[in-house]
Amino acid sequence: MAHDDTNAPRRPAGTAPDMSWFGWGDPALARSLDPGLRDLIAQVLRARPRDMPPVPEEEVRLPAPRLDPRVRARLTEVTGDAHLADDDATRLRHCGGKSTPDLLMRRAGSADPAPDAVLYPADHDQVLRLLEVCSAEGVAVVPFGGGTSVVGGLTPLSGGFGSVVALDLRRLDALVSFDPESMTAVLGAGVRTPRAEALLAEYGCTLGHMPQSYEYATIGGYAATRSSGQASSGYGRFEDMVVSLRAATPRGTLAAGGPPASAAGPDLRHLLLGSEGTLGVITEVGVRVRRRPERVLDEAWSFPDFRTGAAALRAVAQSDARPTMARVLDESETFVGAALGGREATPGCQAVVGFEGTEAEVDARAAAVGAVLAAAGGTRLGPEPVAHWRENRFSAPYLRDTLLSAGILAETLETAASWTDLVPLHAAVSDALTAALDGDEGGAVVMCHVSHTYATGASLYFTVATAAGSAPLERWERAKRAASEAIVAHGGTITHHHAVGTDHRPWMAEEIGALGADVLRAAKGALDPRGILNPGKLIPAPRG
Amino acid sequence: MAHDDTNAPRRPAGTAPDMSWFGWGDPALARSLDPGLRDLIAQVLRARPRDMPPVPEEEVRLPAPRLDPRVRARLTEVTGDAHLADDDATRLRHCGGKSTPDLLMRRAGSADPAPDAVLYPADHDQVLRLLEVCSAEGVAVVPFGGGTSVVGGLTPLSGGFGSVVALDLRRLDALVSFDPESMTAVLGAGVRTPRAEALLAEYGCTLGHMPQSYEYATIGGYAATRSSGQASSGYGRFEDMVVSLRAATPRGTLAAGGPPASAAGPDLRHLLLGSEGTLGVITEVGVRVRRRPERVLDEAWSFPDFRTGAAALRAVAQSDARPTMARVLDESETFVGAALGGREATPGCQAVVGFEGTEAEVDARAAAVGAVLAAAGGTRLGPEPVAHWRENRFSAPYLRDTLLSAGILAETLETAASWTDLVPLHAAVSDALTAALDGDEGGAVVMCHVSHTYATGASLYFTVATAAGSAPLERWERAKRAASEAIVAHGGTITHHHAVGTDHRPWMAEEIGALGADVLRAAKGALDPRGILNPGKLIPAPRG
Repeated sequence: MAHDDTNAPRRPAGTAPDMSWFGWGDPALARSLDPGLRDLIAQVLRARPRDMPPVPEEEVRLPAPRLDPRVRARLTEVTGDAHLADDDATRLRHCGGKSTPDLLMRRAGSADPAPDAVLYPADHDQVLRLLEVCSAEGVAVVPFGGGTSVVGGLTPLSGGFGSVVALDLRRLDALVSFDPESMTAVLGAGVRTPRAEALLAEYGCTLGHMPQSYEYATIGGYAATRSSGQASSGYGRFEDMVVSLRAATPRGTLAAGGPPASAAGPDLRHLLLGSEGTLGVITEVGVRVRRRPERVLDEAWSFPDFRTGAAALRAVAQSDARPTMARVLDESETFVGAALGGREATPGCQAVVGFEGTEAEVDARAAAVGAVLAAAGGTRLGPEPVAHWRENRFSAPYLRDTLLSAGILAETLETAASWTDLVPLHAAVSDALTAALDGDEGGAVVMCHVSHTYATGASLYFTVATAAGSAPLERWERAKRAASEAIVAHGGTITHHHAVGTDHRPWMAEEIGALGADVLRAAKGALDPRGILNPGKLIPAPRG
Repeated sequence: MAHDDTNAPRRPAGTAPDMSWFGWGDPALARSLDPGLRDLIAQVLRARPRDMPPVPEEEVRLPAPRLDPRVRARLTEVTGDAHLADDDATRLRHCGGKSTPDLLMRRAGSADPAPDAVLYPADHDQVLRLLEVCSAEGVAVVPFGGGTSVVGGLTPLSGGFGSVVALDLRRLDALVSFDPESMTAVLGAGVRTPRAEALLAEYGCTLGHMPQSYEYATIGGYAATRSSGQASSGYGRFEDMVVSLRAATPRGTLAAGGPPASAAGPDLRHLLLGSEGTLGVITEVGVRVRRRPERVLDEAWSFPDFRTGAAALRAVAQSDARPTMARVLDESETFVGAALGGREATPGCQAVVGFEGTEAEVDARAAAVGAVLAAAGGTRLGPEPVAHWRENRFSAPYLRDTLLSAGILAETLETAASWTDLVPLHAAVSDALTAALDGDEGGAVVMCHVSHTYATGASLYFTVATAAGSAPLERWERAKRAASEAIVAHGGTITHHHAVGTDHRPWMAEEIGALGADVLRAAKGALDPRGILNPGKLIPAPRG
């Protein structure tokens, strides 16, 4: 373990650092709120921001570790003494993800539940052996990758067991193999994206997966949550990139995929993709890679309104034209985006398209996409308005922390629907959020963009800002519930790329049906008969 | 029922006709063997063809129907009297698929096992009710679409139950809904492809799924077997087209999919896709559609050898260039193809690329693909050599019947592998087939083409011709076993698009692992607890 002082978390030598325990990312990058922006927010939200700083770390209350010494010894027999940590600093950094409820709890000094210990296995075989011990001893296991979940996927619920451990996969950080002819690579599940890109860059390749959590999220986490990145139009969703998976389960190894396609029964990759650590611990991911682009070109476009902009992106998605990235902001987000970027707000709404490839490919594709957008009523604004977004595209979570310290909740939620359902769904969710948050404690700004487009539909990504009010957690939960109900009622999926965790679990039975839930429980029974893997997440409780 | 004479099968009024009971398709289209070709084959195969006509239909031995009259009455209560058939002609046409073993058995007069009855449900709800009755009464159920399986997927195994019924879905032949904005359609599972195309053509759309079984195979069958069509490079595999599925199971309805993408847990569409009737009966399939192409352009290319041709297709698949179809024939198939097309054989091997779209799209894509192929050592031959293939691309099964009547086995098998494994796998399977068939009864012609390409690998489609010999069934089974062992040993999947059925089931435990098989059994337990659905197919028997 590398630790300079006794209060630092005991992370394994040479591995990536933990994120801030009360917010996103590197604490050194935290920003303060510009007083002018603060006043503007107060006006727009009809609420006086108040200081809401996090409690000092030493005041955080952690429950006493409960791991039986005999069980602890069995676990360190697998990992070695150095790779089990049960100090408070390490446990604190593994007691949840980065949703607004997570942060509100942590900042107020609550770290309960916390894992009783954090395990740092070296490889697949150690994970297998740890699961064997935990299954035999009745210890719940929460697989932990980059720690970026915003849906409660990392909350260390014990699920009726006497103790719970976080299984931190950061030591599984190797490029296991690379096949230049087939353009595939096998990566350890714990590899964070910047490291994955650096490893692949040595071969002139890229994965092209760029979600907002890019800097911290891991390859295994992407697979476990069916992640989707900002360049999904060109590179596909993460599940489209996965050619093979290897997972450790309490009943042994489950490997799936390999050949480029197969008709040999149901595709079991898709059982592990999206399984959120409830069916197994993904330890290795085989991915398709692409050559690194010679050129990246962004372009902003303007449309008279969101409906027209969305229809234009539909025309692109259903044509032969292929952007690498395609987004359209609603009127509200267009206005706020211009303000944050220090630009004058243009009327209507803005769309952004991006292109990656060789010089010739970028030219050809930008021309093809441009022709469709222009025909659909768009006006080309050029690259300038996109520059601020591209520079800051991974930093919104830092801004959220800053706002939170100033008493402002800024949270996101997302869905996807067919093109036919999209605009009505956008209105329904916007209205639900606005209504749920409007009252004595001020109002809300609700903004939205389409961030991922498909031939048959698109995603909607909402951002909400509102005063924290007197009971911030309850306030946000009320808004989230209202939005979720609107989503389900208007043909949306409960989550397009944030996954299920604890927060979307109440809507899963409706999403996949009672029989679908039975199937997931049956699969879990085959792989994790005792139910130690990430209890209380994803899979709905059995029908009464 | 529409039947003109008492010996005709009793198919429901207005539905598509059955195929020939002993061969492919429409008996009126059977062809006779040109004497010149017959002599050539004799010479190449070192064997004297012999006449092997099918027995007359009245000599076929069917087991007596075993359905309990009380159970029969419960079933007709659901379907109506007119939609249960247990006459010999109907049962004979539902006692298997169209593999060479199927045909050899049938032609020799064996129709055992045969279904005890054939059910023609009207809709999803009738399927649900029939499964309820069959589950309660212990009757095995074999879902039956177009009847085109070549892997034993339709063999009416009773699985330890006292009787078995074929569930013929031809009445589920409607376009249930069409969404022009989202470019999606919901089709009944029993719709055959030409009808699906006709229904979609009314909206100017196409599915673009063109497997060799096109004329008879159904939409539900494609989903149940993870089919892939000849234009998969452009339109995708069938599983890529499926946006939603509805299935009836003994435990109720399982519906999956809908929104264009989701992160709400494992994608349960992929549990039904490839389930081959073992987990549920797919009754409706939501598909993505495309606009009908203005233009279709085919081009042949010549390469010095198979390795160079395959590498050229790899370069295309890993580039921005996008053919709708991409195939490359090995030297042997290039030679035979030229002979069958009445053209002089060119040295080396031939590739075929096809393009569909608007005039401008076809031009642009043909230019882009052509540039890659030329750079990879190809010589453009133009459209002419492709014309014979396109005209005859659905008729190879008729030729197989003709050859079978002349004592020649002509069967196919297929696999897929990474680009790195592809050429060694091609050699290994070719050698295995050649060695298994060479002996006192003559030799074999083994040919192969790449029919589907992906960024990370490709499929291999082998065709084998050999004299039937004294024990044709055993002779073919020996060759098939040798090929399957070579596939598994050299990184191939046991099936790229023919599915598993009975014939590939012995290799499934190796393909998906013992734990993968456990998961499938667990899913089946949740959906079909009594195990009535297509017993003996796909899912390996439990570990001893």
